[in-house]
Amino acid sequence: MNTFGTNFRIALFGESHGQVIGITIDGVPAGIELKEPDFSEDLARRKSGTKGTTPRMEQDKPRIISGVYKGRTTGAPLTITFNNENTRSEDYSQFVLQPRPGHADWSANVKYDGFNDPRGGGQFSGRLTLPLVAAGVVAKKVLAGYGDISVDAAVGIFGGIPMEECTDPEGEADYVGYASYEDEKLPKEWQDALNRIIKEGDSLGGEVFCSVCGVPAGIGEPFFDSVESLISHAMFSIPGVRAIEFGDGIMAAFQKGSEHNDAFGNDMKPQSNHAGGVNGGITNGADINFGVVFKPTSSIAKVQKTYDLRSKTIAPLSIKGRHDTAFVLRTPVIVEAMTAIVLADLIHR
Amino acid sequence: MNTFGTNFRIALFGESHGQVIGITIDGVPAGIELKEPDFSEDLARRKSGTKGTTPRMEQDKPRIISGVYKGRTTGAPLTITFNNENTRSEDYSQFVLQPRPGHADWSANVKYDGFNDPRGGGQFSGRLTLPLVAAGVVAKKVLAGYGDISVDAAVGIFGGIPMEECTDPEGEADYVGYASYEDEKLPKEWQDALNRIIKEGDSLGGEVFCSVCGVPAGIGEPFFDSVESLISHAMFSIPGVRAIEFGDGIMAAFQKGSEHNDAFGNDMKPQSNHAGGVNGGITNGADINFGVVFKPTSSIAKVQKTYDLRSKTIAPLSIKGRHDTAFVLRTPVIVEAMTAIVLADLIHR
Amino acid sequence: MNTFGTNFRIALFGESHGQVIGITIDGVPAGIELKEPDFSEDLARRKSGTKGTTPRMEQDKPRIISGVYKGRTTGAPLTITFNNENTRSEDYSQFVLQPRPGHADWSANVKYDGFNDPRGGGQFSGRLTLPLVAAGVVAKKVLAGYGDISVDAAVGIFGGIPMEECTDPEGEADYVGYASYEDEKLPKEWQDALNRIIKEGDSLGGEVFCSVCGVPAGIGEPFFDSVESLISHAMFSIPGVRAIEFGDGIMAAFQKGSEHNDAFGNDMKPQSNHAGGVNGGITNGADINFGVVFKPTSSIAKVQKTYDLRSKTIAPLSIKGRHDTAFVLRTPVIVEAMTAIVLADLIHR
Amino acid sequence: MNTFGTNFRIALFGESHGQVIGITIDGVPAGIELKEPDFSEDLARRKSGTKGTTPRMEQDKPRIISGVYKGRTTGAPLTITFNNENTRSEDYSQFVLQPRPGHADWSANVKYDGFNDPRGGGQFSGRLTLPLVAAGVVAKKVLAGYGDISVDAAVGIFGGIPMEECTDPEGEADYVGYASYEDEKLPKEWQDALNRIIKEGDSLGGEVFCSVCGVPAGIGEPFFDSVESLISHAMFSIPGVRAIEFGDGIMAAFQKGSEHNDAFGNDMKPQSNHAGGVNGGITNGADINFGVVFKPTSSIAKVQKTYDLRSKTIAPLSIKGRHDTAFVLRTPVIVEAMTAIVLADLIHR
Repeated sequence: MNTFGTNFRIALFGESHGQVIGITIDGVPAGIELKEPDFSEDLARRKSGTKGTTPRMEQDKPRIISGVYKGRTTGAPLTITFNNENTRSEDYSQFVLQPRPGHADWSANVKYDGFNDPRGGGQFSGRLTLPLVAAGVVAKKVLAGYGDISVDAAVGIFGGIPMEECTDPEGEADYVGYASYEDEKLPKEWQDALNRIIKEGDSLGGEVFCSVCGVPAGIGEPFFDSVESLISHAMFSIPGVRAIEFGDGIMAAFQKGSEHNDAFGNDMKPQSNHAGGVNGGITNGADINFGVVFKPTSSIAKVQKTYDLRSKTIAPLSIKGRHDTAFVLRTPVIVEAMTAIVLADLIHR
Repeated sequence: MNTFGTNFRIALFGESHGQVIGITIDGVPAGIELKEPDFSEDLARRKSGTKGTTPRMEQDKPRIISGVYKGRTTGAPLTITFNNENTRSEDYSQFVLQPRPGHADWSANVKYDGFNDPRGGGQFSGRLTLPLVAAGVVAKKVLAGYGDISVDAAVGIFGGIPMEECTDPEGEADYVGYASYEDEKLPKEWQDALNRIIKEGDSLGGEVFCSVCGVPAGIGEPFFDSVESLISHAMFSIPGVRAIEFGDGIMAAFQKGSEHNDAFGNDMKPQSNHAGGVNGGITNGADINFGVVFKPTSSIAKVQKTYDLRSKTIAPLSIKGRHDTAFVLRTPVIVEAMTAIVLADLIHR
Repeated sequence: MNTFGTNFRIALFGESHGQVIGITIDGVPAGIELKEPDFSEDLARRKSGTKGTTPRMEQDKPRIISGVYKGRTTGAPLTITFNNENTRSEDYSQFVLQPRPGHADWSANVKYDGFNDPRGGGQFSGRLTLPLVAAGVVAKKVLAGYGDISVDAAVGIFGGIPMEECTDPEGEADYVGYASYEDEKLPKEWQDALNRIIKEGDSLGGEVFCSVCGVPAGIGEPFFDSVESLISHAMFSIPGVRAIEFGDGIMAAFQKGSEHNDAFGNDMKPQSNHAGGVNGGITNGADINFGVVFKPTSSIAKVQKTYDLRSKTIAPLSIKGRHDTAFVLRTPVIVEAMTAIVLADLIHR
Repeated sequence: MNTFGTNFRIALFGESHGQVIGITIDGVPAGIELKEPDFSEDLARRKSGTKGTTPRMEQDKPRIISGVYKGRTTGAPLTITFNNENTRSEDYSQFVLQPRPGHADWSANVKYDGFNDPRGGGQFSGRLTLPLVAAGVVAKKVLAGYGDISVDAAVGIFGGIPMEECTDPEGEADYVGYASYEDEKLPKEWQDALNRIIKEGDSLGGEVFCSVCGVPAGIGEPFFDSVESLISHAMFSIPGVRAIEFGDGIMAAFQKGSEHNDAFGNDMKPQSNHAGGVNGGITNGADINFGVVFKPTSSIAKVQKTYDLRSKTIAPLSIKGRHDTAFVLRTPVIVEAMTAIVLADLIHR
């Protein structure tokens, strides 16, 4: 089902090459100022158009069709839609018979008995993250009603190269990398990797780090509605995620308890943050920190093999359609959006 | 809220040192054979009592108090309870004033205004994983109604040492390690690490790998109810989890698309399994593979520091209570249980 | 929250005088034929335009913006929208300060701190039943996949006059009255009552009876998800409902057990149907029969009193806006829609 | 599924003749005083033992097995169980083959493929209302935290005789009748009707009226989560309910708008209460008033007919087991409980 959340609930709809995609957000408090330009900054961060991203250019203009009156939310469901304009459906016709490795072409075909919309990946397209970013903008505004809470994500590893190994990181401490990006602003080593892989007709992945500051202690639930449970649920809803780690994450398998535990200092603030801001599923007052690993883009020009359902043979496949070389570069704002959506849901309870 | 699942739904209750802990399972099909001895094997795998685990010994005898008639499930809610017998609540009295690093003592205190049951960690105790394992036994029986589906988990990394680096792995391929364990069966390097850390009064973590075989293609949903979303949600419900990775997991950040994609072979079976068995949130017919990282046990004898709420100073803390040195060794059956619970929910839809 | 259902789930959005109203339906099986003309018949039955109904004329043209490809459902969320064209918002400006008796003007103002959209009743408008009828069309198609299931509703009591007391009922047995209506087809006694009340500037209510034929025995759940629980939940979602009764309904308070019980005959079919087709929350194979009472339209031209929030005095109020004299006449198709939605949800489990 | 509610959520389990029945309540705020004697009054009101009720005597002693520590709720799931002691399962063995009219014997048999527990009606037994009453006690305590809110229900019509037609009503205004009852306190006309029907070996039904005072305006939601939707959902979860009506209820079909509308007076208080306290699904500040119709008890000594599944003929059936002659007399406290449960859920949002 395409609904997520309990008290701040989103319902996603649309397909990559349909007329309209959109999202309905329920549980938005009444009285929040909201107008279409408020979405511009976050939508721009998700936009394609620089090197390594798909040449499919879309206006991405949000249209608020319900839930706002005189510039403020009404408490009624808030629906935001976007038109799909720049579609080239002929690009995709072959993939029903020659399913693309790494894509949902085949698993969706099985699930929906072949009735799913294959154009541009249909409902499975990364384009559906556009309304998620819009919902994230609303969620961030909801969080602002609970204090000075910030959600910031950035690419920290690209193509296997951690930012801190770059010569011109232009970046800062632990969890900050490039939140938006334009390719000329990438560290030189990342630019080089990108140029190289484009020439190869191949693709790259990476890891995005997200940090939430200002969330009070006491948010979340033990067991099933733990902060980590809900955030990871949300993250794996983003297409292409392979892993998530909180705090020291995967390194915890290599540490001792004395290294991993966060001692409490004056005023009960954790003095370190190996846990990632959560104890027993509940925020402990430290920043919530986590990393999300994105796979390399599945669509590559380089020749792959797949099974051809018509000829019943293994066939070579080169994907010529428009696609990102490294969609991870567009994901930080999506990670932020899904995080804010989870917290807007949890903080209200 | 302490409920999880839509069509196969569990509701967990109880505290570490209360009279009774238990679970209610809703949505169990009628007619499945179920008797109390069916739980023995999985409950035994979770049990403590060997080196490195807590000396708290419990009978762990399941009592089916509803939902079964004449040895078969009735379709009504299935409730299973366990008595708590071996409790020593005096062990925990100090931790309200001196919250233990890594535990929920403090975050729970904030959330519940100090009214939470602190004895043995109360609701946050690892003891609550006992009813989860029982629910997992039921879920595995439900899955058996859909074909030959197996769920197997084992420790693959312990104290930072991958099993494949051990001299006597006694283990097999990629995703198999020690599913149950008794310390004399651990690889020598793991035994050594365990003995060393016990002497230090410290603790160790590790990573558990889980593999689901036999799930048909077409299970799961795009976006919010993706297989990965629901499994990760379930995994982070287990106390002490720090990370989860599907397929190649965190390594995906270091790969090219041509390395990560799984080509389809004859009969549309993926020829490799870098994705972990899921495309677009939906199973693709390959095994579902994932790893779950557990932190080192938070309770350690070694002296730590914490804030003392009464004296309002930083105070030294040595945790003398009964606890595991490396609870990760007891978790594979819990990982299996939560996985089976998710799949029993998804496969029914 | 504006979501209803578990496996067949609807999410409603829009306001009476906003640009667009619509509904997203999740859980629609893939492969069902669906095109915009399929909605015509049911939408026409809800339409206004004859005597006693609002002169607000709308095109009510459905637009399927997602979830259908090549004329068939895809399994993805199905979103249907309608434009609002014939709005006269100035009609409603006064009601913020002078809340209309019987309407949500005041209760909504309290709930949403005055930020709700007051135009045409905003989210509370009967216009929102338009997308519900559209969702009902889809639900009826889903039910058709489970056998020959019909859902039929009709007005049985109008303005206090039961159809069986009319001289020209033109009607048939127990649960059938006028499903769609045009005033010239109303029984003479109902026409007379309608003409009389229009002259008085007042309004009338009535009762709608609904019958579901062909549902197999065994649908529904004990207690909370009983067939009656879910149907009544759905019915009271329709604006203006005051009561619901199943089978003999309110008369059960006047019967003996020997009069009320339904004896089973050959093939276990109930021989009578005092229960309304449900025992213990679960269908018993008989038709599901129930009646839904609608209040008289709250908006009346006749002078009423209300409290004026500006002058802080009791003020006279005559409602001149466009409204139905007896909206109950438009409701049978809405009752059918909500019934089909509930059954499409239940039958799938 | 046997779960109800979103933020105050109950999960019911157990069967009439199983060892234990119980309920888990989730979302109870921490810090509420709660001890087992707090349940006594409401449980006693539900108890049987006077004329016209079942001779099955049970201790009905509640046992709080989780969620309370040092006499206060902890915020963790609160589980309350009751033992079943006075069971005579042999009474029911015949009803699998000779399904009782009015009971779920047959519909449950179909739904659960014959695996349901038939003893005492199994999960469908009125005995399951015992834990619901216990949950109601907790819900009433939650409501008390929101102000001076009272929930009072009483039988208003018994065996077709409205209390106001009785000569010694000993009763009061509109919505008050006998909340608890002992037969000697029933109005004389009701006592006579009860004695008469016992002699006939038949049974009686009635209507219970419930009034909620002190709920602030602004509670509830438009459409699907309207106050009426959720209350009616809860009421039809009680076995044997046939109808529910809010405010003037079924009489609304006979009224004019000018008669039905509630004018607002000074301070925006409705001056009458034809609507039953709710406008547009949201409380308007008036009392919430509704009536619930219960059918006559289905189990009667008088000979009925049913289909015998073994002999494949219509067979006579006289039900000799222990049962109520008029279970409606025991229901007011159940109606109160379910009402309080709904409001505890809604008021928290």
